[in-house]
Amino acid sequence: MLTNYSRRTFLETIGLSMGASILLPASTLPDRARADRKLNVALCGLGRYANVLKRGFAESRHCRLAGIVTGTPAKAAQWQQEFKLPAQNVYTYETFDQLRNNPDIDLIYITLPNGLHKDYTIRAAQAGKHVIVEKPMAFTVPDCRAMIDACRKAGVQLAVGYRLHYEPHHIELKRLGQQKVFGPVRLIEASLGYQLAGTPPDDWHLKKAIAGGGALMNLGVYCIQSARYVLGEEPISVTAQYSPVTMPQLFREVEENITWQLTFPSGAVNTSATTANCNIDRFYASADNGFFELSPALSYGPFQGRSSQGPFNFPVVNQQAALLDDVASHILAHKPLPAHIAGEEGLKDMRVIEGIYRAADSGNKITLPPL
Amino acid sequence: MLTNYSRRTFLETIGLSMGASILLPASTLPDRARADRKLNVALCGLGRYANVLKRGFAESRHCRLAGIVTGTPAKAAQWQQEFKLPAQNVYTYETFDQLRNNPDIDLIYITLPNGLHKDYTIRAAQAGKHVIVEKPMAFTVPDCRAMIDACRKAGVQLAVGYRLHYEPHHIELKRLGQQKVFGPVRLIEASLGYQLAGTPPDDWHLKKAIAGGGALMNLGVYCIQSARYVLGEEPISVTAQYSPVTMPQLFREVEENITWQLTFPSGAVNTSATTANCNIDRFYASADNGFFELSPALSYGPFQGRSSQGPFNFPVVNQQAALLDDVASHILAHKPLPAHIAGEEGLKDMRVIEGIYRAADSGNKITLPPL
Repeated sequence: MLTNYSRRTFLETIGLSMGASILLPASTLPDRARADRKLNVALCGLGRYANVLKRGFAESRHCRLAGIVTGTPAKAAQWQQEFKLPAQNVYTYETFDQLRNNPDIDLIYITLPNGLHKDYTIRAAQAGKHVIVEKPMAFTVPDCRAMIDACRKAGVQLAVGYRLHYEPHHIELKRLGQQKVFGPVRLIEASLGYQLAGTPPDDWHLKKAIAGGGALMNLGVYCIQSARYVLGEEPISVTAQYSPVTMPQLFREVEENITWQLTFPSGAVNTSATTANCNIDRFYASADNGFFELSPALSYGPFQGRSSQGPFNFPVVNQQAALLDDVASHILAHKPLPAHIAGEEGLKDMRVIEGIYRAADSGNKITLPPL
Repeated sequence: MLTNYSRRTFLETIGLSMGASILLPASTLPDRARADRKLNVALCGLGRYANVLKRGFAESRHCRLAGIVTGTPAKAAQWQQEFKLPAQNVYTYETFDQLRNNPDIDLIYITLPNGLHKDYTIRAAQAGKHVIVEKPMAFTVPDCRAMIDACRKAGVQLAVGYRLHYEPHHIELKRLGQQKVFGPVRLIEASLGYQLAGTPPDDWHLKKAIAGGGALMNLGVYCIQSARYVLGEEPISVTAQYSPVTMPQLFREVEENITWQLTFPSGAVNTSATTANCNIDRFYASADNGFFELSPALSYGPFQGRSSQGPFNFPVVNQQAALLDDVASHILAHKPLPAHIAGEEGLKDMRVIEGIYRAADSGNKITLPPL
């Protein structure tokens, strides 16, 4: 029964489903993965999310935080000490390109502000390093394509930091939706918002040039992702609306709130809202013979949810550690990354984000271009 | 505390808030209301909702089911027997207007299909009877105005069957929203849908001429109501979208699914979906300092909900009995009906419904006309 997953059953299930043994006890790992070799990762951009990733590295089996890139000497000193990093693995943005000469670094994890994702991903690829880039991957579909192409050309792999693919509740949402456990899903409501009234006016999230957009860029991508991976389809059209600005002193350049509606080839519909003026964090899917929902749903968790068969009962996992280990286990085994985390996945979201902005800007229903 | 309402406290609260003693034990009623006089009601249209109302009459203190109007002799016989109705209080649609000669009937409760609401409301008024008409009140704002005017001219009162105003969870939603208990409400998600795949193709709900519309007319009015009464504001603009038709054999004339977005003067936003292709029944409001939600939310209940302070714990009441008794206690006391149930309330919803259809038909954002 779905609702009576034991921890063991669950772990076996996602262990199998991800083609990796990321959460199994070390003693059960296949020989290859038990080898001592870890993937050496340099973190590029030591902001808020880099701090979230600290615990991910601590719990990771296959990744080692081996280097940093930062423009702030105090952060450099602090992280160097905390992770016992050799001085030659500590970079600034000026010395970033010299990473190409450092065989101690296998992968660069880019947690810079959105507007720097494209440039640093391409430069990381040109330095011969694999890349994980945080969401949103970039600002436009052509930018995403350029990043994918640069990585392909350089023979490195590109991942987007889609942590929720490693979260048990979301793995279950995907199963219930894609396997049509309750029949075809007809309607998905997914919304994410944080009350950001206290944000300093100089926060980069408020600057169009560096953030690329507001609530949609930073939060909306989670809603779009959830609709896409639960349905296992790509949307074909979109309508969208900006909502009134309630904090004009902060939201001069990027949208404070936006709502949108996606239509999928099956006829399924997804309605979503993202906002910076209130808290909201919910996912609901209605299918022919049942429903499933999470609330909280799309934040860092812990999540709560249920289906029409009863409450979910899944363990809390460190999403970041699981993501790092899945990326590492594929790269260490010279296997291509799973589609759900590859650069093309970020491009598919960007296609939708671009459509949402076009729809909201024009007031028109936008037919999304073919992929 | 909100979450620790005792039944007694709750009953006292809504007893006070509604200016009526509708749910208090008879021994505590003021002399006037304790008098033997009950309001005599004729039910016009013995379909599905008339059957729901049976229990409402059974639990009502101030209403008596005193007559019926039906075109089906078998129903006439069955209801006449069940409610021990004198033969002279049993009408057909042909004899409806003769109700004017029947002093045993004070009020006509119209539970006919939507398309008959206007005509029968006006004729009931012209017969000198008070009216309760089911939602949606009519098809257009001018129709609603004509109904209101006819009742005013005839010196009778007009109510719309807005049962949720008498439901404890909704009374609490209204309090939390209008009194800004968690600060101003910013975003309301309210959706209602039923899987109607099994509907017979000749069901009147599928016929434009008699239903006036599809999911929006029949279900959407609850979503619109909840947003309006939680915010205590009237929306100023609307966007709306028809969703793909998944049951083309049924939905040839009226919409199967529709989504919409309302903007309010405060800047608050309401997003909603109504559908006939899946089940959904949820309400969520996010305010500056908290949230409140119900699920199930807008159906007949029983409802479940919580605020950011904890779960709700309200008694189940018979919404229909409470509505009947509130209408009756006002009419018996020669007092005007509360605004939340008067005809003008139905007109306000119709203004929004018309705007939603105009927005969905045109694809444009519609500025709603002033009230």
